[in-house]
Amino acid sequence: MNTWGSKLKVSIFGESHGNGIGVVLDGIPSGLHIDEEQIRREMQRRAPGRDKLSTPRKEADEVEILSGVFDGKTSGTPICGIIRNTNTRSRDYTPNLLRPGHADFTGFQKYGAFHDYRGGGHFSGRITAPLVFAGAIAKQALAQDGITVGSHIKAIHKVAEQSFLDCELTDAFLKEISEKAFPVICDEKGEEMQKEILSAAADKNSVGGIIECAVTGLTPGLGSPFFGSVESLISSMMFSIPAVKGIEFGRGFEMCGMTGIETNDPFETDGERIYTTTNNNGGINGGITNGMPVVFSLAVKPTPSIAREQKTVDTDKIENTVIEIKGRHDPCIVQRAAVVVECAAALAILEAKLI
Amino acid sequence: MNTWGSKLKVSIFGESHGNGIGVVLDGIPSGLHIDEEQIRREMQRRAPGRDKLSTPRKEADEVEILSGVFDGKTSGTPICGIIRNTNTRSRDYTPNLLRPGHADFTGFQKYGAFHDYRGGGHFSGRITAPLVFAGAIAKQALAQDGITVGSHIKAIHKVAEQSFLDCELTDAFLKEISEKAFPVICDEKGEEMQKEILSAAADKNSVGGIIECAVTGLTPGLGSPFFGSVESLISSMMFSIPAVKGIEFGRGFEMCGMTGIETNDPFETDGERIYTTTNNNGGINGGITNGMPVVFSLAVKPTPSIAREQKTVDTDKIENTVIEIKGRHDPCIVQRAAVVVECAAALAILEAKLI
Amino acid sequence: MNTWGSKLKVSIFGESHGNGIGVVLDGIPSGLHIDEEQIRREMQRRAPGRDKLSTPRKEADEVEILSGVFDGKTSGTPICGIIRNTNTRSRDYTPNLLRPGHADFTGFQKYGAFHDYRGGGHFSGRITAPLVFAGAIAKQALAQDGITVGSHIKAIHKVAEQSFLDCELTDAFLKEISEKAFPVICDEKGEEMQKEILSAAADKNSVGGIIECAVTGLTPGLGSPFFGSVESLISSMMFSIPAVKGIEFGRGFEMCGMTGIETNDPFETDGERIYTTTNNNGGINGGITNGMPVVFSLAVKPTPSIAREQKTVDTDKIENTVIEIKGRHDPCIVQRAAVVVECAAALAILEAKLI
Amino acid sequence: MNTWGSKLKVSIFGESHGNGIGVVLDGIPSGLHIDEEQIRREMQRRAPGRDKLSTPRKEADEVEILSGVFDGKTSGTPICGIIRNTNTRSRDYTPNLLRPGHADFTGFQKYGAFHDYRGGGHFSGRITAPLVFAGAIAKQALAQDGITVGSHIKAIHKVAEQSFLDCELTDAFLKEISEKAFPVICDEKGEEMQKEILSAAADKNSVGGIIECAVTGLTPGLGSPFFGSVESLISSMMFSIPAVKGIEFGRGFEMCGMTGIETNDPFETDGERIYTTTNNNGGINGGITNGMPVVFSLAVKPTPSIAREQKTVDTDKIENTVIEIKGRHDPCIVQRAAVVVECAAALAILEAKLI
Repeated sequence: MNTWGSKLKVSIFGESHGNGIGVVLDGIPSGLHIDEEQIRREMQRRAPGRDKLSTPRKEADEVEILSGVFDGKTSGTPICGIIRNTNTRSRDYTPNLLRPGHADFTGFQKYGAFHDYRGGGHFSGRITAPLVFAGAIAKQALAQDGITVGSHIKAIHKVAEQSFLDCELTDAFLKEISEKAFPVICDEKGEEMQKEILSAAADKNSVGGIIECAVTGLTPGLGSPFFGSVESLISSMMFSIPAVKGIEFGRGFEMCGMTGIETNDPFETDGERIYTTTNNNGGINGGITNGMPVVFSLAVKPTPSIAREQKTVDTDKIENTVIEIKGRHDPCIVQRAAVVVECAAALAILEAKLI
Repeated sequence: MNTWGSKLKVSIFGESHGNGIGVVLDGIPSGLHIDEEQIRREMQRRAPGRDKLSTPRKEADEVEILSGVFDGKTSGTPICGIIRNTNTRSRDYTPNLLRPGHADFTGFQKYGAFHDYRGGGHFSGRITAPLVFAGAIAKQALAQDGITVGSHIKAIHKVAEQSFLDCELTDAFLKEISEKAFPVICDEKGEEMQKEILSAAADKNSVGGIIECAVTGLTPGLGSPFFGSVESLISSMMFSIPAVKGIEFGRGFEMCGMTGIETNDPFETDGERIYTTTNNNGGINGGITNGMPVVFSLAVKPTPSIAREQKTVDTDKIENTVIEIKGRHDPCIVQRAAVVVECAAALAILEAKLI
Repeated sequence: MNTWGSKLKVSIFGESHGNGIGVVLDGIPSGLHIDEEQIRREMQRRAPGRDKLSTPRKEADEVEILSGVFDGKTSGTPICGIIRNTNTRSRDYTPNLLRPGHADFTGFQKYGAFHDYRGGGHFSGRITAPLVFAGAIAKQALAQDGITVGSHIKAIHKVAEQSFLDCELTDAFLKEISEKAFPVICDEKGEEMQKEILSAAADKNSVGGIIECAVTGLTPGLGSPFFGSVESLISSMMFSIPAVKGIEFGRGFEMCGMTGIETNDPFETDGERIYTTTNNNGGINGGITNGMPVVFSLAVKPTPSIAREQKTVDTDKIENTVIEIKGRHDPCIVQRAAVVVECAAALAILEAKLI
Repeated sequence: MNTWGSKLKVSIFGESHGNGIGVVLDGIPSGLHIDEEQIRREMQRRAPGRDKLSTPRKEADEVEILSGVFDGKTSGTPICGIIRNTNTRSRDYTPNLLRPGHADFTGFQKYGAFHDYRGGGHFSGRITAPLVFAGAIAKQALAQDGITVGSHIKAIHKVAEQSFLDCELTDAFLKEISEKAFPVICDEKGEEMQKEILSAAADKNSVGGIIECAVTGLTPGLGSPFFGSVESLISSMMFSIPAVKGIEFGRGFEMCGMTGIETNDPFETDGERIYTTTNNNGGINGGITNGMPVVFSLAVKPTPSIAREQKTVDTDKIENTVIEIKGRHDPCIVQRAAVVVECAAALAILEAKLI
């Protein structure tokens, strides 16, 4: 199940410490101009080692496009992008000691003794790099139709800021936020959030957060019942991103505390367009876009890699023991995950347009 | 996109007011004894008109099995189950007046003038009946392997009860709750919840809630990276259920307020089995089951059908107007949705076992 | 694998002697007027018991449409058509005696003791009835775009007639042939073919033949490399039809005796349209339609059911024995299979248009 | 549609003159030892420039494995193999002059002005190299279960040799033939066939032929009704190979001249195993393997690239003209295609085992 999609097909491959990782993206129409510089910027937003908030593993994360692009434009055939693994210190790993919160145990259960455990192998967060590459192209395809995908960090640990649902969502607004090094609506809140991260780091601990994503410029009618709801497409994509443990559309879980008269978004017209005056449903009714911005939030759990002693099992001896994970680690991956979420959303929305 | 799954295939069809609705379920191994009585019980749990809490539309919801079952056992070929629509008063519908919170607008955007708008057509909650039929069979297939799927109502509007994550989850416990007319852990809380529903009804309003679902008896290693994570499979299935607006696995959004040392579930062994001492990750690491119960919660929004005057648009005239939805309606569908969630979960888990 | 297609989805279900058989067809655009009378005519072309050439099993083969059609037009949602099994004398079958040439042995190998062996169960030629229903709708969808699918019987046993490749293929020509009770270009040859069939019947034997199918009115550019070639789509569909054992496009196997200068179809233009002056490639280059008629031929083997004593194995005793199949049987199914081929081709072409 | 398969997934990418070509193969179980030397031998069997019979374009066709293999064994995750394009003289191509028999016209119809026309682009026979890589791995996976795939050249132009159906098919026999530089049963016939090729070359013309493929060691019960017949799986795969225009299983088209009593393969038992005494059905009944060797033949058309003046259209001017294709070309690709057919068959059989 390393291929996603029906009309658009995304096939991911690679292990953290193998020769390379990559993606085959099939279904992009021919004639789309590929802005390689923009792809590079998106890759950089995800790349580790950029600042004091993230892991020191430095990966160039340069994508080589092997196919599907001719004279700077998509040719309509599958686009394969590959990324070399350059910084692969395999000696750090002790496969018999299960890292809590990681996929070590489940990886061995799935693949047996042949599991490539190094750095999480195929389960590594590193495998989101090809997803960013594919999604960056999807974003460009959507931009042609006036569709913009943006995100902000709605919360880090105990610090939260306002929701996109309470903002006027314009393309310019979304782009402005996405270009920030630490993408938040309110920079003061952003400062506080970064303090949470640094404080966790100082404590050899980690924190999670909430990413909120919005898509503007959508025409109504995208998606498909019964199983092709926009929520199904987006959520199946999002839960492929390591550390994502929850998703909600519009007011989501908050709607439990509201009543029908409050959550129903009333329709209104200006004589031309039909729209809703509120957007509690996050731009989706019956699984289909209603023309309002699609808005959803993701729960991202604290990074499991922490430099603390933790209880675990030695699988060689089937004995209880402790593990201390070596090296420096990301105390928080929310800020790096934001671009992954945007790119994954772009892929899901493109599929919703095509089905 | 009315077919779900790769190894297990679920194909849904039907409109609320057409001749019939149904499902084709392909991929169930041959030789499974079909307990038709149990299927009937599950269908009854979903059926409307059972008590004062639900819509008076009475549907027998008798399923006729057309294929795939021979001498009471599955023959390995596709199982088609159909349900006749018997109570279809089409005269109630005024397609030009968009019902807020419903799929009327998006249905017309998707299908144009040919949309079968009667009772929501293909978008109707009624289409979950075939899903229950298919899932009831999936539950029986899972039961053969010692796997149990159960659920409870974790919250209705402002009233909430404890989480499955804070209980000892046994098969017997899950079954006991599922058999309750109003499935809650604590019956006193259940009484309060039902009062919330009756109070909303009295107010011609509606309320939503949270359903929590648990699956026990799972072996570790089910599911598949990258896009076949158990979370992706379950969520893509759940967001096909009308009114579901959010999902979280394990502690979900709550993990944002916790730190890595708290959310990492430590591994432990009794010398034979390896398990985790907490289950914050809801039984899933890296998208793969770890042998602990899979636990997830769903946000169900308040029923959009309410007998109040609501602002909307008349699509014939492209003019603002008001709508008052006739008839009696469910003030809450959470209690009826619980069985749908269990059955949908059973289908997703069965697929996770097969891929 | 009872679902075919990516953009168009065809899900077949049913056993020869179960409650019913049918199909779910998803992906037909909304707004297509359904001509039920034409569907009935296509169903009749396939139905047994019409004349002295076929089996006396009489099946009304009335299709009931359960969903997807509203006010006589497709609503864009899945169309489910079901057919009741009415004439199901199960007592004729001795499952322990394998019928040579049939799927009895392989059915038990696939499904074990739970295989519904009655009348071939899910392997029965009867399951092509739902395929005709689905394909009849596909034909109507294609007709809207000026695309016509027709076929003729190119050979029965030792008697053959000319190829469509040597005719001028117009819509009217194809329709004229399809309307014949015994669809051939040359009726005299048709008389000879029917004599072959009656002669085989008199001899308690059976004969096969070759069906040639043509599709006109296609625009160039349909289909998709690498695995979505029109030949791949059509052949995967055709080999689902029982008794089909070979397929060739254009000159097919005959091309082995030709040279490149002969088989290459030269391009020509009249100043507007580009076409080829010959059609050896059967309207397909590189898997994609080139605008010429798509032409292909199918080898249909002699019906395996013959009223002769045949050597076989008794699977209860694992002993060699003989079987004599009771009842009257089709001495040839080619004439009934022609409409199945046309309808299956219509489904494959519709998918080729959509992918 | 560049991804094939349901349980096994094969995703092909690349253009003849782009940076590289390759394949992602997903679904190979973990723990399979990869024999890279054997893969190299299979790649060499397909590679051009080996002898006087083939095109002088020399491609190293070295595959680099990027993922899915760890310590020489498959890890269960997707295997990506890439091949660099090194010999890409793009200056030879005049995109406005359509080469007869090629996909130039259809490629432009499919992809418009953005089609990568150089060397046929994505339609090039070169794209079969990744298929050989993927299939070579599939062959190794099948070999583990005692399954062997072999082929021979049954005919070149007017020279034909006997069928596999008239031989005793053992693993050793199939392997012996596959190892021949020119794989035939009878080497004298092979000499004659090669003369046909050289004679066509001397005449600046080309010839086609028939490849027959056999698979031994299969257990009965593989494949799946209705659309997953082994014939459907194999044929959909084979028609992805450029120049294949026909396929027949067992006696195929020859069965038209036979009668039921002749084509029905009688069952027999030795007290343990059940088998058929003839194999007219090519090892498949009702789409499912019956344990006899699967045998099928493919019509391969004469190579369209010939150094003759041919009539065509200049698409810039929409005028009739002539084209003369520069350079030296394969006068026959049948001998190189044999390994492609074997490898593609291995992939189809592996899928048939898994579904």
